[in-house]
Order: sequence, then C-alpha cells, then structure tokens
Amino acid sequence: MNTIISYHQTKFGELWEFSLHDLIRIAVTEAIKDANIEKSQIDAIFLGNMMGGVLENSLHMGAVIAEQLKLHIPVYRFEAACASGGMAFQQANIYLKANPDKTVLVVGAEKMTDAGAGAITEALSAAAGIDEQFAGLTFPGLYGMLARTYLDKYNYSEENLAHVAVKNHYHGARNKKAQFRKEITVEQVMKSPYVASPLKMLDCSPISDGAAAVVMTNNKTLIKNAKHAVTVLSTELATDSISLKGRKRLDTLEATVIAADKAFAEAQLERKDIHIAELHDCFTIAELLAMEDIGFWKKGEAGNRIANYETKIGSGSGLTVNTSGGLKAAGHPVGATGLKQIGELYMQLTNQAEDRQVDGKYGLAHNVGGSGGTAVVTILGQV
Amino acid sequence: MNTIISYHQTKFGELWEFSLHDLIRIAVTEAIKDANIEKSQIDAIFLGNMMGGVLENSLHMGAVIAEQLKLHIPVYRFEAACASGGMAFQQANIYLKANPDKTVLVVGAEKMTDAGAGAITEALSAAAGIDEQFAGLTFPGLYGMLARTYLDKYNYSEENLAHVAVKNHYHGARNKKAQFRKEITVEQVMKSPYVASPLKMLDCSPISDGAAAVVMTNNKTLIKNAKHAVTVLSTELATDSISLKGRKRLDTLEATVIAADKAFAEAQLERKDIHIAELHDCFTIAELLAMEDIGFWKKGEAGNRIANYETKIGSGSGLTVNTSGGLKAAGHPVGATGLKQIGELYMQLTNQAEDRQVDGKYGLAHNVGGSGGTAVVTILGQV
Repeated sequence: MNTIISYHQTKFGELWEFSLHDLIRIAVTEAIKDANIEKSQIDAIFLGNMMGGVLENSLHMGAVIAEQLKLHIPVYRFEAACASGGMAFQQANIYLKANPDKTVLVVGAEKMTDAGAGAITEALSAAAGIDEQFAGLTFPGLYGMLARTYLDKYNYSEENLAHVAVKNHYHGARNKKAQFRKEITVEQVMKSPYVASPLKMLDCSPISDGAAAVVMTNNKTLIKNAKHAVTVLSTELATDSISLKGRKRLDTLEATVIAADKAFAEAQLERKDIHIAELHDCFTIAELLAMEDIGFWKKGEAGNRIANYETKIGSGSGLTVNTSGGLKAAGHPVGATGLKQIGELYMQLTNQAEDRQVDGKYGLAHNVGGSGGTAVVTILGQV
Repeated sequence: MNTIISYHQTKFGELWEFSLHDLIRIAVTEAIKDANIEKSQIDAIFLGNMMGGVLENSLHMGAVIAEQLKLHIPVYRFEAACASGGMAFQQANIYLKANPDKTVLVVGAEKMTDAGAGAITEALSAAAGIDEQFAGLTFPGLYGMLARTYLDKYNYSEENLAHVAVKNHYHGARNKKAQFRKEITVEQVMKSPYVASPLKMLDCSPISDGAAAVVMTNNKTLIKNAKHAVTVLSTELATDSISLKGRKRLDTLEATVIAADKAFAEAQLERKDIHIAELHDCFTIAELLAMEDIGFWKKGEAGNRIANYETKIGSGSGLTVNTSGGLKAAGHPVGATGLKQIGELYMQLTNQAEDRQVDGKYGLAHNVGGSGGTAVVTILGQV
C-alpha cells in the first residue's frame, strides 16, 4: 500500500525573503530529512506549480530541482491551475502502483506576492477559458457567478457564505504555518468590501507564497521504520469544461462529484467514515459547493448547515473541515495547496496537529483547478 | 504490452489560421478517428505543452481538452521545456503499466509563430537556469557554447556541423508534414549568418506551430483489431542540472546517457538493433552529441562520421536518423516534438512513411528539454 512517511510545509504568507526555487528547495530537503532517508533513496519527484512561467519566466523546473539535489532521477512538472499539487500527487500514486519498492517525493510550490496586482490577476485568469478571459472575467468574478447562482437558487443570503470564513479563520488561528492567524466575525466579513458581488474581501482566499512536500513509498522497510505513516486509500482526478458556459449546472462542480464518487469507491468507504476533510475553499462558496458535491451534505442544504458550525473544531459532529484554516486562512500558494491539504491530513491522522488536533481515522482532501475544470479527491487512512 | 494504435500530426510550420487550442483539438480528434475507436473509450489524456502560459496566458489546458471533447476523464498537462511531449508519453506509459485494460491519448502541441521575436526568445529562455537568463544567455547561445566546446575539444570545423542540416533537409524534403521541404547544401549552411557562434542560421531548428498525438493501449482487443500497431519496449526519463555551470562536462548531455542506458536495458536490445532513430536536433550540434551520448557512435567521432552521410536515407548503413527531417527541417513546435518523433517511428515501423520509408524492426526517439536538463529516450518495436 502506498504510504506517506513524511511531510514538510514552509510557512504560507508573504515570504519576500525566499524565491520560488528557494521554497521548493526547502520543502524538498526538509521532507527528505523528516522521512529519515537519504536523497539517493528517492526514485522520482513530482512537482505541482502553476505560475512559474507566467510570473517569472521559469519553466523546466524539473531540471532546477535536479540541480538543487544533484540527482539525475526523473522530475515531472504538472500544471492544472490551482489543482497542480493534487494532480502531481495523484500521478505519483499511479507511478508507485506501476513500480514496486519505490519512493517518491511530491512537492507543490508557488511564489505569488512578488507580482503586482495586474500581473497576479492576469496569471490567475490563465486558469479560465480564453473566451472568459476575453470577456474580462477575473477569478473572483467566476466564483461570484457561482455564488450568485447558489444563493438565488436555494434562497440564501450573503451571511450564509460568511460562516465559512469565520470557521476557517478560527482554525487558522490555531495553525502556526497559516498566513492569517486571526479570528474574524460574521460582521467583519459582511462589512468587508466587495471583490466580485456577492463575494467580499473576507470571502476570498489570499495571494500567498509557500511550498509543501510529502515523501510517499511502497517500500516495506521504509514503511515499517517510518516514525509517522499514513496510508493512501485512493486519489482520483476528474475534469469538466474549463468555461462555465460549457457546464450543465452552475450550482455544482461536476468534476468534484465524479472524483469523489471514484475515490470513495476505490477506498471502499462511506461518506460518514470521513472525520477530517481539507476542502478547496478558494472562496467561501467553494466550501459550500464541495460539502454538497462530495456528498457530505445534500444539495442545497450547505447554506443552512454551515451556520450551525458543525464542521468547526470541537463541535463534536464527527466531521471537521479545513482544520489547517483552509485556503481562506492558511493561505493559497496555488501549486502548494493540494500538497498542504494532504499534509494537513497526515499531521491530523498521526496526532501531530497540536492546537488544532481532532480525532479521526480517515481524512479526505479536495483540490480544485480554476472554477472547477479539474478536481482531485484523495482519501487517506491511519496505518 | 503497451501498444500505439494510431498517430496524427498536423503539418508543422507557420499555421496562422489555427490557434493552440485548434491544433490540440485537430490532433486529438484525428488520432481518435485513426484508432477507429470512440472518444468514450479513452481513459485518460496526457498533454505536453511548454509555452501556452507565457505566450498566451493559457494554463489549465487539461480542462480545455475536457471542454473540447465533452469528457470528464483525467487530463494531465506536463511541462519540461522542449521535452514536454516526451515526458507526457513517458508518464502515459507508466499509467498503462499501473492500469490494465486501458487506453490513453498523448498529445503534444505548441503555437509559437504568433509571438514577436522578443517574446519567443524570452519564452525559449525560460527553459534555462535563472542565472543563465540573467546573464543574457539565449537558447541558441547555450547550444553555441556546447558546440564551441565540442569543436575545440575534438578538433573539428564548423563544416562538421553543417552535414546534420544538409542530411535532415534532404529527409524533410520527402516529408509532406515538414515545415521545410527544400534541400540545402553545405555551402549554404556555411554562408548563412551567425546566430550564436559557431551556430549559424541553418544550424538552428525553426520557430514552429503544430501538434501531434498518439493513441496507446494495453487492451488486447483494441491491439488485435488495430490496423497499424507498434509496441512500446521502453521509455525512460533522466534529468541533469538545468544550468551548464552545474555539469561535469560540456561535450556530453549526461541526462541522455542515463536515459538511453536505462531504455536499452529495459528493452533488452543492443545499440546495433536500432535501425531508425529520431534524435533531438534543435541545433546541429545536438544531433552529434546525441549520436555519441546514446552510444551509436563513440565520443568524439560524430564530427567525422556525419560527413560520410551514413545516417541518411539510402546510405545502407543500417541506421537512418531523423527521417522526418528532424527538428531542423520538420520543424520544432516544442511541446509537439516528442510526440512527432514517436509518431515518425510509428509511421516507419508500420510502412506508412511514403517517400522517406526505410527498413527496420526497432526505432528510438530522443527528446531533450532545454540544454539537456531533461532527456527522454523511447524504444519502439514492430508488433
């Protein structure tokens, strides 16, 4: 069984003292160190990064990592917008299925805060369809349309979105690696300025720098000797029309539904078996859609149930969501996010989550590219 | 055994009437048609593209393909500079090893001729190390340094490079899909203006648009029913320091040496078993280095042997190189090149290569990223 034996995450935030390549190097070398292995024991590396090309003219980053490590092993770079990290992990899992007795490293990284507002807005919009870009739609603009559809269809107010931000900031305040470690109130969310109606500033995840890496192996000796180990039960990827106009419905992300169904089938688990989930809350609306699309809650009921704070640490409901603080409070360096989600589950399932520790045997990570054109759902379990 | 059952290539050249996404769509839909299957029989798609982000702000292209095909299957995008196509193919092969009874499509594409000279020079330099970029080194500049090292060390003149271009233009003239279908002479190469000494204009591959796709399967029924099929014996990827300063030697690309050794070991073949090779001749020097690094010729002797034209169609030597015209004459839409090389072997091994047909049971493709930071070597055989 493919098993994660270490995780390292840099702090997420405005890390002006580090370059993109610094962040990758730190996450890679620390994850190897934490796994208590030599770099020569790594057989292949899988990298998720979205914006290295557009923001700093750095492509071919596999060879950058080869230079950093002085290794000649395969290094693969994946790009699927904000799902780049999840995609890299999903393919790494396939690599291990094809190759017995191997060990891989999966790293996600992004360096966003050096770019000006125009450059980062344009870079983020590269995740959208060309016609959407020509129409002037920004990344928040696309999710604003999804939010408007949802609120109107199920008769909710903007306050129903705000609870996601409040909960995730509460969690982020308990995570030392989070970008924002400050609790907020519904009133503060409601009073924050509009970014793309109905989404306000405090409905949006921030622009962030950061990197995260895991070491994953199917080598029995390494698994046996691992200090902290978590099993990969399934990881599935699905796609959808990049443009919203190509979708049947706008109150659901079909790629999430498909990836989740496949992941639960492969893991042979039920929705109720999951105790910890890291969901892709790039905007508050996205967590509500994810709760329904994954099947934790029924379609249309998330707006109500989020107001009960039943997925908050300490609620006792049995399912806690985004203990890391989510993208909203922990930060969203896009290529790193998919790995940070998996890493948060690893920390939780191995009782290393400190002030935000919750109980649970199984965890689920959900990583989305763009406005839902790609989704990756991963289920991990205690060994 | 993983088997290629179809191939489609757009013409390579200045295709102003098509966008990047048009080229992808054409190659994908035609390859599916040629395989005589329905699109619903495709389980996953692997895309190689380098410059979609930097040249046209298009990332997340997996979801673009999902929209074009109206499918929800996994679509993975790989980027390793000019080895993006080879990397996509190499991972697709791993996917099939992990998953029995599956069929995948691998597509490579690039749209380069819409960009201005400055933009394309910068985009190509994204394949180099950041310090090399800061030093002002262009892509031809890096290969110019490799060429200078080789000519000086083994006491050759610039004419020893020119024969590569003459041979590959001779081949390209016989390939209807090639960008340049015109034979050239050594004198013409020698009289062409310097781009980056000692490399002259006719030592360099062109800026190109194009796409290429293969359908590969391990489904026994599809293999049995295929009109034209070729077996994948091995495909291996290795890396090296992205920057030349990080290399031990500059008269060899170590990533090629490692990938080739692994590919021959996996295929259980000797160098002499290969009758057809598509090598990564982005510049004339690159084909000479590849002939030696793969082990067809001894280190230092390529400069002499190329002058005998023993790898030209009709020479009778038993090994013909770059029957497609290579990158030099067939064109080099960078993300498509790795797939076009594999496709050319497919056409040759299934006797569909028309005016450029040569005999042979086994073929080798060699795809390089940047100045050698990534190399992919693939060996195919007749079924």
